Amino acid sequence: MIDPETVRERLRAGDRRLLARVLSAIEDDAPVLRDLAAALAPATGHAYVIGLTGAPGVGKSSVTAELIGALRARGDRVGVLAVDPSSPFSGGALLGDRVRMQEYALDDAVFIRSMASRGHLGGLSAAAPQALRGFDAAGYDVVLVETVGVGQSEVEVARIADACVVLLAPGMGDGVQAAKAGVLEIGDLFVVNKADRDGAQSLIRELRGMVALADHGPDDWKPPIVRTVATTGEGIADLVGRLDRFRAEAERTGRWQDRRLGRAETEVSALALASLRRRLGAADSGGGDRLVELAEDVRDGRLDPYAAADRLVAARE
Amino acid sequence: MIDPETVRERLRAGDRRLLARVLSAIEDDAPVLRDLAAALAPATGHAYVIGLTGAPGVGKSSVTAELIGALRARGDRVGVLAVDPSSPFSGGALLGDRVRMQEYALDDAVFIRSMASRGHLGGLSAAAPQALRGFDAAGYDVVLVETVGVGQSEVEVARIADACVVLLAPGMGDGVQAAKAGVLEIGDLFVVNKADRDGAQSLIRELRGMVALADHGPDDWKPPIVRTVATTGEGIADLVGRLDRFRAEAERTGRWQDRRLGRAETEVSALALASLRRRLGAADSGGGDRLVELAEDVRDGRLDPYAAADRLVAARE
Repeated sequence: MIDPETVRERLRAGDRRLLARVLSAIEDDAPVLRDLAAALAPATGHAYVIGLTGAPGVGKSSVTAELIGALRARGDRVGVLAVDPSSPFSGGALLGDRVRMQEYALDDAVFIRSMASRGHLGGLSAAAPQALRGFDAAGYDVVLVETVGVGQSEVEVARIADACVVLLAPGMGDGVQAAKAGVLEIGDLFVVNKADRDGAQSLIRELRGMVALADHGPDDWKPPIVRTVATTGEGIADLVGRLDRFRAEAERTGRWQDRRLGRAETEVSALALASLRRRLGAADSGGGDRLVELAEDVRDGRLDPYAAADRLVAARE
Repeated sequence: MIDPETVRERLRAGDRRLLARVLSAIEDDAPVLRDLAAALAPATGHAYVIGLTGAPGVGKSSVTAELIGALRARGDRVGVLAVDPSSPFSGGALLGDRVRMQEYALDDAVFIRSMASRGHLGGLSAAAPQALRGFDAAGYDVVLVETVGVGQSEVEVARIADACVVLLAPGMGDGVQAAKAGVLEIGDLFVVNKADRDGAQSLIRELRGMVALADHGPDDWKPPIVRTVATTGEGIADLVGRLDRFRAEAERTGRWQDRRLGRAETEVSALALASLRRRLGAADSGGGDRLVELAEDVRDGRLDPYAAADRLVAARE
């Protein structure tokens, strides 16, 4: 790859193929990232990162597509990062879903990319902020981070985003599930999509009750519940307005910067951990094969795994 | 909790409530585990751990329930560990699914437990082998580890199990998906459930072609493809027979012990890493708040995250 300073210049100038290559390097945890990260660091901080999460079937892709349209209409450059939970089974479906996004294929101010988190040793927590920095350096005003609501990815996306939008729809099973599972805590805004369907009103009512009960921290932001019908575009303008208001409010209270600090803490910890993991790996592939010896003792019941782990860490130091 | 030696005795004597408490302690990564692990280590190694994985809808719970029945019929004591990928959205569905398992609620030789992996700092790789040791110490002959095929859990389950069964069913979308995604490499046995449905024959044909092409290592075990109709019990006896043969064959070639060594390596690494992570955490909550300072520099573009991670690791040493 070309030198990091040139990469920064060319990203800024709108080189899409280069952005694609940078994102691939991040996905693969390529060694070039270290230099690149240093070059991009000062160029970032501008983009508004919006996380979108929800169970399969709530209409996430349709809402995302409409949101892109609304943001483009007012001149924003829009990046989309679809976080693939790396499932052998659902991996294909994620991309198949986004036929609607094809309409932006020729729009130079829209860049859609799906990213698997398994290539990066630091996981999504380390890879996604890097990717966001790539979008940011390339001058995108908004980056939509879309993740399917399975596994822990929706909790991770909430940590990565400036604002987290949780999508629900009527008829997706018990609404109370959502509360129990902790999505209430991660949502800065809720969208009830397919709001023209049966059951929407009772879902909204239930959600409203739960939002009223939940603790949203000291600064008193009450997450709004936005009704949308993505297939007709209904409610999308309202959603954009709410997102703007959320940002303004968060900047006013200082939560914006606090949250970005939290994101940086998570990222730095994940990278530090990945580097420690790499060293443990090196210890095991290296000379004494200490790990194999210890594992043999564990397998055969001569040693318990905690004691073995202590010895492995001690051997590394 | 009572002292570790007594725990071992009482587990061996069939104390189910105690087993439940031990499994909870593992899930929560309770400090008592260290002593417990040391006490249980010599008592284990007997149970045959069978992983079952597949996309939602293939009939995993039904196959599991039939398998329990067949194993019970020949006198095996059977443990079931349902690994919950900790999804806020799907967490409930996993348990709702297992109404069929209710028939074993009164059978003292069957113990069914679902376990979330998020409580344990070492993740599934560290928590599951511990839980298996609990079942093992309690005298279960077979432990079925069931995981829904989302996220990376099916790859992890393959690492944990003595044998990994991959379930497929006709009409679940493109069969070729499976190959692309790497499930072929993890399957020691394949089950095509709902084998009486349209499309079963072509799915089997396709799978057979792919299994023939895949590399199964030096010892030449060709994963069989078993047809089942779990709703009628068809094919379950065949599956049990194949699982027995797999074990006999693996013990003969030495792969059995190799695989258990690999499992112990993964477990010890995960625990070692968790202990390092704990120390990084301590570094950040402690005096200098080094992590927060570094994260501020990263957030504000004064430092790149890789350099920050290096400094964090250096500060710890």
